[in-house]
Amino acid sequence: MASQEPAYVAIAQRKQEALAAAIPAEWRLPAHLIPAGMLSPAESITEGPKQYGRVNVMEIPRTCGILTAKELEITEKYDVRGLVAAMTGGKLKAEEVIRGFCKRAAIAHQLTRCITEPLFDRALRQAKELDDHFQRTGRPFGPLHGLPVSVKDTFCVEGVDTSIGLAALAFKPARKNADLVDLLESLGAVIIAKTNIPQTLGTLDSCNHLFGRTLNPLNRQWTAGGSTGGEGALLAMNGSMVGFGTDIGGSIRIPAMCQGLYGFKPSDGRVPYGGQEGGQIEGKGRISLQPVAGPLARSVADIAAVMAEIVPRAELFGEDCIPGYWPTPSVPVSLAPPRNFTVGILKTDGLVTPLPPITRILDEVANHLRRTPGVEVVEIPLPPVLPKCQALAGRLMGVDGGSNMLDLIESMGEPLTPWLRGRMKRGKAVTINHLAQLQAQRAHIEKEMMKMWTLSSASKSRQIDAIVCPIAPHPVPQMDRYNAVGYTSTFVLLDYPAGVVPVRPFAESDLELGRSMNHPVLGSWDKANRLLWDEKTVDRRVYLDSPLSVQVVTPKQHDYELFQAMEIIDRAVQGRVGSTPAKL
Amino acid sequence: MASQEPAYVAIAQRKQEALAAAIPAEWRLPAHLIPAGMLSPAESITEGPKQYGRVNVMEIPRTCGILTAKELEITEKYDVRGLVAAMTGGKLKAEEVIRGFCKRAAIAHQLTRCITEPLFDRALRQAKELDDHFQRTGRPFGPLHGLPVSVKDTFCVEGVDTSIGLAALAFKPARKNADLVDLLESLGAVIIAKTNIPQTLGTLDSCNHLFGRTLNPLNRQWTAGGSTGGEGALLAMNGSMVGFGTDIGGSIRIPAMCQGLYGFKPSDGRVPYGGQEGGQIEGKGRISLQPVAGPLARSVADIAAVMAEIVPRAELFGEDCIPGYWPTPSVPVSLAPPRNFTVGILKTDGLVTPLPPITRILDEVANHLRRTPGVEVVEIPLPPVLPKCQALAGRLMGVDGGSNMLDLIESMGEPLTPWLRGRMKRGKAVTINHLAQLQAQRAHIEKEMMKMWTLSSASKSRQIDAIVCPIAPHPVPQMDRYNAVGYTSTFVLLDYPAGVVPVRPFAESDLELGRSMNHPVLGSWDKANRLLWDEKTVDRRVYLDSPLSVQVVTPKQHDYELFQAMEIIDRAVQGRVGSTPAKL
Repeated sequence: MASQEPAYVAIAQRKQEALAAAIPAEWRLPAHLIPAGMLSPAESITEGPKQYGRVNVMEIPRTCGILTAKELEITEKYDVRGLVAAMTGGKLKAEEVIRGFCKRAAIAHQLTRCITEPLFDRALRQAKELDDHFQRTGRPFGPLHGLPVSVKDTFCVEGVDTSIGLAALAFKPARKNADLVDLLESLGAVIIAKTNIPQTLGTLDSCNHLFGRTLNPLNRQWTAGGSTGGEGALLAMNGSMVGFGTDIGGSIRIPAMCQGLYGFKPSDGRVPYGGQEGGQIEGKGRISLQPVAGPLARSVADIAAVMAEIVPRAELFGEDCIPGYWPTPSVPVSLAPPRNFTVGILKTDGLVTPLPPITRILDEVANHLRRTPGVEVVEIPLPPVLPKCQALAGRLMGVDGGSNMLDLIESMGEPLTPWLRGRMKRGKAVTINHLAQLQAQRAHIEKEMMKMWTLSSASKSRQIDAIVCPIAPHPVPQMDRYNAVGYTSTFVLLDYPAGVVPVRPFAESDLELGRSMNHPVLGSWDKANRLLWDEKTVDRRVYLDSPLSVQVVTPKQHDYELFQAMEIIDRAVQGRVGSTPAKL
Repeated sequence: MASQEPAYVAIAQRKQEALAAAIPAEWRLPAHLIPAGMLSPAESITEGPKQYGRVNVMEIPRTCGILTAKELEITEKYDVRGLVAAMTGGKLKAEEVIRGFCKRAAIAHQLTRCITEPLFDRALRQAKELDDHFQRTGRPFGPLHGLPVSVKDTFCVEGVDTSIGLAALAFKPARKNADLVDLLESLGAVIIAKTNIPQTLGTLDSCNHLFGRTLNPLNRQWTAGGSTGGEGALLAMNGSMVGFGTDIGGSIRIPAMCQGLYGFKPSDGRVPYGGQEGGQIEGKGRISLQPVAGPLARSVADIAAVMAEIVPRAELFGEDCIPGYWPTPSVPVSLAPPRNFTVGILKTDGLVTPLPPITRILDEVANHLRRTPGVEVVEIPLPPVLPKCQALAGRLMGVDGGSNMLDLIESMGEPLTPWLRGRMKRGKAVTINHLAQLQAQRAHIEKEMMKMWTLSSASKSRQIDAIVCPIAPHPVPQMDRYNAVGYTSTFVLLDYPAGVVPVRPFAESDLELGRSMNHPVLGSWDKANRLLWDEKTVDRRVYLDSPLSVQVVTPKQHDYELFQAMEIIDRAVQGRVGSTPAKL
């Protein structure tokens, strides 16, 4: 009978054993500290939110006794620049910093299943080399000397699997690093782990047959998001300082939203993307929709700290990158004459009306901004072509019919995960002429969308500096219930940089919103979205305490300006109104 | 019998009549001033160089008596900044400047057949409006107030044909301007004419059934180059200050070389490309090889004068453009710490060995540069992937099989021009998977080519600032004999900005070079190239006095640095050695 077992089962077993073995015994949580209902990887795929219960595991690293007081301080009290400064100032050793984060990452993993490839030994070896370098030369190895970072499983690390959760790709160690890995290591950063993703990378729950399902540490019933879901869980638990994911439909921004983190989807060409495994035919991004790589972190400052080092060097590491400019705080450069900062509020994509708590959070952010000196707030009318973006992005992602991914899955007899079943089908590749037509439609949409940035249609200068809009039309949902990616995929289609800023937790008072929901149904996506708020189909209380966040967007290739906008909005939301955008 | 005549003939006749009628009687050259052998447009397509004789028509505008002394001064004595300053300083009126250039353009056209759509009336009307504006407000309309410019026929101008020499597209006036036309006009520039191109835009002689063949004013036997050949002839005769062309295989750089002009092929996204007619399926550039728009002019300074205004505004006009940075001379910005400037000499593409005079001119430029303070010269070893670039660029251009263009040509019964006959065939469109493979090969080549910019392969910083290499492996050839575009199409494949700097005329002493040519034949392209120097197949004396030029190349998206490099090389070549690159 064993011969009847699909090939993937044994491979998954071996992969899970190797993963468990990479966690030293003294870093393992005693069984009584792991909340009940933690399933095996295989069970975690099919079981739903009820099994997990409303459990928040965020405090366990602090209370489990595995981390020393100093390790708790190292993993909780620093931001990126502070942590690097502590190492380059001789206050901390890279080895103790990396050990602290590896331990914490191991604990986070045992509670959320966020890691695919622990790189703890490799990371500790690199940390010792950094300490040696520092002792020998008296100088840091690079501007991110000793910084513990993590990367989505898609990024190749030499000698380590890039399985992306597929048995067909397991036990085939990468022969060289991804370009971003090379770049990060040249800066002195240390990669402590690779993190979990969804089967196919194309769903919003990070769940596959090799590693099981990543859980949201804030509440195990909520989705951790995807496809960079492992990063989301790891970062939320302070298991890494900065995580790097990729985004084509929202895969950086959605996990950031689900875990209350900051996420930054750059424009194409700002962060090296090459050297990843996506399960797609090679070269696909260049002819259809190009995914991009970017960071998730716990503050705007931490995102800026890494982008300031990556962006200017990107062209030296990735053939897909262009010269980049990112002024560091010590060398402030004014990109424009002093002026006010104008934020446009875009309330809907015209395809799915955001649920009432999402609309409320936009209103709240607008009000925070209106009280901020130097900031002007305007409401943006719906651009007529905006509702076309989601479908066009989807069609571009599917131009090849997805055969390569399905071949990989089927070759090992892997069943599709529940969310994919019925949704993922082998399609037909389009013709060259059809593909060109899709790109021509895209160009037309891009041209029309340029008007969004001006207040008068006759003007040829921009007056809107940044847009604030929803990330999703709903709050963080329970697992396997995320609905529609139009609010995120649109800005990949347009190549606008887009970031996530958390605002506040969902409150009791939000439960009372939209008791009636009388506005007209816009279409099937809109109808499905209402099920997430309709009291007949959902218990709204599942959203209590979930992070409510907004998306911030700037024009194409204005990535530094996105950081500035995120900082202004973050300060306004956090009530630091006195901090006017002086650096503009 | 008349009903047997292909449809294009009557359309071509009407088009030629309309063109002739747009030239006022008092601007027409008397027959005795037009050198013998000037053929009708139809004859010009089939006849070869012998018919035209070795005739230089460059002096005729000066001697024909049609231009006044002041008009000669206006059209000959100014550079771009000087001419604009004369108008905005009140010394010249826009109307007299535009009239002078329109007259000179009309004369140039009668000698070289360079214009497709004269816009003289429209231009004079606009000039008057600029003068009115200046008188009314005391201020220039824009930074290029009154500057006479011309554009390749592919650029749409509202109300004017964009026939690109095809009967199927004639008498269908454009409904709106190309983005670049809008941008130029917003700066105060005045478009005085659209200019001639080859049938299909895909050959290097600007020759089609609507407008006939553009002749090289330096020597009617030589090709004027293509596909921006009309611009080349017009600019050489001072019929315009700056011309705008497009380049995918070399279409800006080749006419610049053929007429001894400066040409600038930018990186993608620096100059708006949208709103052109190329006879291709819409959206093709985005999935295959993206052509770019850029200027030709009579000096590096003139190119910089227009690029400085276009590049920073490009993103506001073209959805295909990105934020641009181009410091103006009055606001010098240092992009890098003060350092020496290193020029790499790349002598061959490994596919076609340059003929001896081309190698000699590279050596001469290297020697000029070695004598320039602050400049270091190194020889670049052949990058192993470089010889693959020409074929890959060609394959990407042909992914759709070219059916759209052939449909247009055949619909009006147009025969292919002699050079295309036997070369242009209806191909088969490739599949999506094949297309993605081609783009993956391109990414691999781009990655490998990054190494060319460093002197040691271990280094991750660039040490080479610019490359000097041939534009073609041969001197300016006789019409219909241009051989291979690998030296130019390569830098579109790689998206490296690339410019043309003329060095000196071909001299008697160059005739003696390479009497034996014993080096091994590299392949069919190399073999064909030798026929252009082999005394059995060519009289080398046809090259006497032809401009010998070099190509200058910088890394991807380093367009401002290309201008700097062209300036350094131009100064070195012109013997202005004392002028060190202080602004670096």
